[in-house]
Amino acid sequence: MKIIKTIQEIREEIKKHRGQGKTVGFVPTMGYLHEGHLSLVNASKKQNDITVMSIFVNPVQFGPNEDFEKYPRDTQSDLKKAETAGVDFVFLPSVSEMYPEGYKTYVSVEGITEVLCGKSRPGHFKGVTTIVTKLFNIVKPTRAYFGQKDAQQVAVIMKMVRDLDMDIEIVSCPIIRESDGLAMSSRNVYLKPEERKAAVILSRALFEAVDLIKNGCRNRDEVIEYLRKRINKEELAQIDYAEAVNAITLEDSALLEGRVLVALAVRFGNTRLIDNVIVEVV
Amino acid sequence: MKIIKTIQEIREEIKKHRGQGKTVGFVPTMGYLHEGHLSLVNASKKQNDITVMSIFVNPVQFGPNEDFEKYPRDTQSDLKKAETAGVDFVFLPSVSEMYPEGYKTYVSVEGITEVLCGKSRPGHFKGVTTIVTKLFNIVKPTRAYFGQKDAQQVAVIMKMVRDLDMDIEIVSCPIIRESDGLAMSSRNVYLKPEERKAAVILSRALFEAVDLIKNGCRNRDEVIEYLRKRINKEELAQIDYAEAVNAITLEDSALLEGRVLVALAVRFGNTRLIDNVIVEVV
Repeated sequence: MKIIKTIQEIREEIKKHRGQGKTVGFVPTMGYLHEGHLSLVNASKKQNDITVMSIFVNPVQFGPNEDFEKYPRDTQSDLKKAETAGVDFVFLPSVSEMYPEGYKTYVSVEGITEVLCGKSRPGHFKGVTTIVTKLFNIVKPTRAYFGQKDAQQVAVIMKMVRDLDMDIEIVSCPIIRESDGLAMSSRNVYLKPEERKAAVILSRALFEAVDLIKNGCRNRDEVIEYLRKRINKEELAQIDYAEAVNAITLEDSALLEGRVLVALAVRFGNTRLIDNVIVEVV
Repeated sequence: MKIIKTIQEIREEIKKHRGQGKTVGFVPTMGYLHEGHLSLVNASKKQNDITVMSIFVNPVQFGPNEDFEKYPRDTQSDLKKAETAGVDFVFLPSVSEMYPEGYKTYVSVEGITEVLCGKSRPGHFKGVTTIVTKLFNIVKPTRAYFGQKDAQQVAVIMKMVRDLDMDIEIVSCPIIRESDGLAMSSRNVYLKPEERKAAVILSRALFEAVDLIKNGCRNRDEVIEYLRKRINKEELAQIDYAEAVNAITLEDSALLEGRVLVALAVRFGNTRLIDNVIVEVV
């Protein structure tokens, strides 16, 4: 596995491989790798000749009062995990490599970024679409892999790729969960022991909402009301949002139909966790 | 010369050529071709194996009260000129091919787009950077050619390409002028005969400003004052702006130094013309 820190060097490496007709799979991450990230590497390795991972905590997608500074980082451990998983190239740029002084260009997707997490985190998705565009232009992947845990991120990136005619296949991979159901996330490390226990309520409530829908409920408000009541029973949990929307457009409709995304954001102390499920309503 | 109307088809054509290691030069235009555009084709043909021209009047870069509807169009004549000039592929998409229903993604460059034409045409450059990003993603050129007549457009696109790490060389080509000095522009066709005569004041004033600077003037305000007085003598001319700024950053400074862009926008009736010169201040 090769570790590369500059744009120029990764460009040259990848140009060599693409020149030989090889396909390139790309796994963009903010590091602090867990099994969720590694499942993306596995998917990439199955579908591509070369797998590139980026590790970059992107300041632009954090709000002024968010956790950029304290976001967990452990580069040495990340590199070991990436190597074991079979990554070929790790792109590990500095902030000044990605955002040199005087940086001024941003990519924004309107509409779909203004609901769910976009409401609680204004500017977040503009940061995501900007860094992902930059990384796509640098790595020029055949396919790029994202975790379904960040369901809105997946929907936003798919919309951006379609709108801007990027010639890249976006692959969304299933959420990887701890044995008790908690969705894996680098932010889980923030949880105090009692919060960690309480956090299981997210996946439980979601799985129960799936049962509710599978048993015939087509009423959005009823599903949301169920989620809210269930989560509010947990004293440590503070709901940021509970929603059921179209999984592709993220549009709201009182009657649930088609591919439905049921999504939650819940705070435990200072830690904000998200989770979701997708249900096919037939 | 092949004429192509869909994104998928042009992608496939270019993929064939790039797969053979050929370089691709790209000349994006809004059609109504004049010698300025054809000089870009010439430059591209000298430097690349294949030259692609796009002809697309981009609605997103026109303001609500601007001339999108009446912007001059003559596709048949354009295709003849392009073929004679030696273009290999013309990409001629429809508005719905480029902006399908529900289109929502925009690229914006801050700062540099808020001065000069950006002040009089809010949203214009966001439209330009968005369509150019889309066209770059579709055509994947080695080099792209722009006319220096739109000096701010060149500066904005170069900034976007640097900031978003697009792997494309931007080539700026000199302004092509009529025999009396008027910069060639598709919009010159709007001018009434007396306005056409009067419009020569733009290049005259600019060339005189160059002399002023070459004779030792380093005072921005003096240069601007000179331009304003000179143009205001022409009754049909209404100044939109007259500026002298850094040619790369478009930043303003009272003392002229380095690469200076002297730029004008002047209205003649309903027609807004722009022109500029670059002076190296040593």
